[in-house]
Amino acid sequence: MKELELYKAFTLIEPGPVLMVSTADGRGRPNLMTVSWNMVLDFTPCFALATGPWNFSFDALMKTRECVLAIPTIDLLDRVVGVGTTSGDEIDKFKKFGFTKMPAVEVSAPLIPECYANIECKVIDYIRRHDIVVLQAVRAWIDASRKTNPIFHYRGDGTFVADGKEYVRYAKMKPKMAPGL
Amino acid sequence: MKELELYKAFTLIEPGPVLMVSTADGRGRPNLMTVSWNMVLDFTPCFALATGPWNFSFDALMKTRECVLAIPTIDLLDRVVGVGTTSGDEIDKFKKFGFTKMPAVEVSAPLIPECYANIECKVIDYIRRHDIVVLQAVRAWIDASRKTNPIFHYRGDGTFVADGKEYVRYAKMKPKMAPGL
Repeated sequence: MKELELYKAFTLIEPGPVLMVSTADGRGRPNLMTVSWNMVLDFTPCFALATGPWNFSFDALMKTRECVLAIPTIDLLDRVVGVGTTSGDEIDKFKKFGFTKMPAVEVSAPLIPECYANIECKVIDYIRRHDIVVLQAVRAWIDASRKTNPIFHYRGDGTFVADGKEYVRYAKMKPKMAPGL
Repeated sequence: MKELELYKAFTLIEPGPVLMVSTADGRGRPNLMTVSWNMVLDFTPCFALATGPWNFSFDALMKTRECVLAIPTIDLLDRVVGVGTTSGDEIDKFKKFGFTKMPAVEVSAPLIPECYANIECKVIDYIRRHDIVVLQAVRAWIDASRKTNPIFHYRGDGTFVADGKEYVRYAKMKPKMAPGL
């Protein structure tokens, strides 16, 4: 992976892609979670994630104050859905879904080289009343060897979309979906 | 427009589309702004917008505590870019870019019937230290007559994307872009 100038890193998050958040828990036990509730806060860049104590990774985020935002492409969809529908409390998601842990430079959480981009971040705030975690990016990496990087989006209803093509994962996502959908 | 069950409204924002925020300023002067820094906070649904006093609409948001999130499709791109690169301080954006003001039910800000979906929202919080506005959706509307709804995403670098097709608006977006891009 090639280093990406930090001032360009917000462009990775701005389109609203599905992300994986990689964490270390300080006892050598990294974990991954999948999130689509994320946004840019400023160009420096700072990012916001909507997450809280109900996610197993949240404890590691609060303890280490560090994470990596890894941006997957559509070829990884089923592995990313796997990460998003299991708990690190029960399994080693890296092993189970075939993701590699590559050491980062500024944070203890690992980079995921299977993803086309990785952003090393410090947790700079947690807004408890709305469960918003605020991140400051400190380093960014990109797989410059790729010709295309079809990031994908989640619609919240069990369907994903990349480059206008729909991918239905309703049965897999059902347990994570809002009641009634 | 047909009413959309409120519990489904988060699915409109989850994919990370470019939005327009419609406001009224309490003196009968509605305005529009374009935002791509937005995310879902919960299924009820609450949403977050990254915005602050540097946006002309912010004053109206804080005064009226209401807005409408309007979700445009790619056929409206140049009008949405126009909204995003001008100030309501100087022009009437509805007139200039040909958007209609349709009365909402729960809020004073107008619905935009040219957009494929509209969500009426109350401002329930403003997190000053990170310039995050927290919205509670109260009513949602969708244009049920459409066969497709190609929402679009911004990449932060002057390019937009819808259904995998790139739309370059570099010159128009340049004044709004991060330094160096």
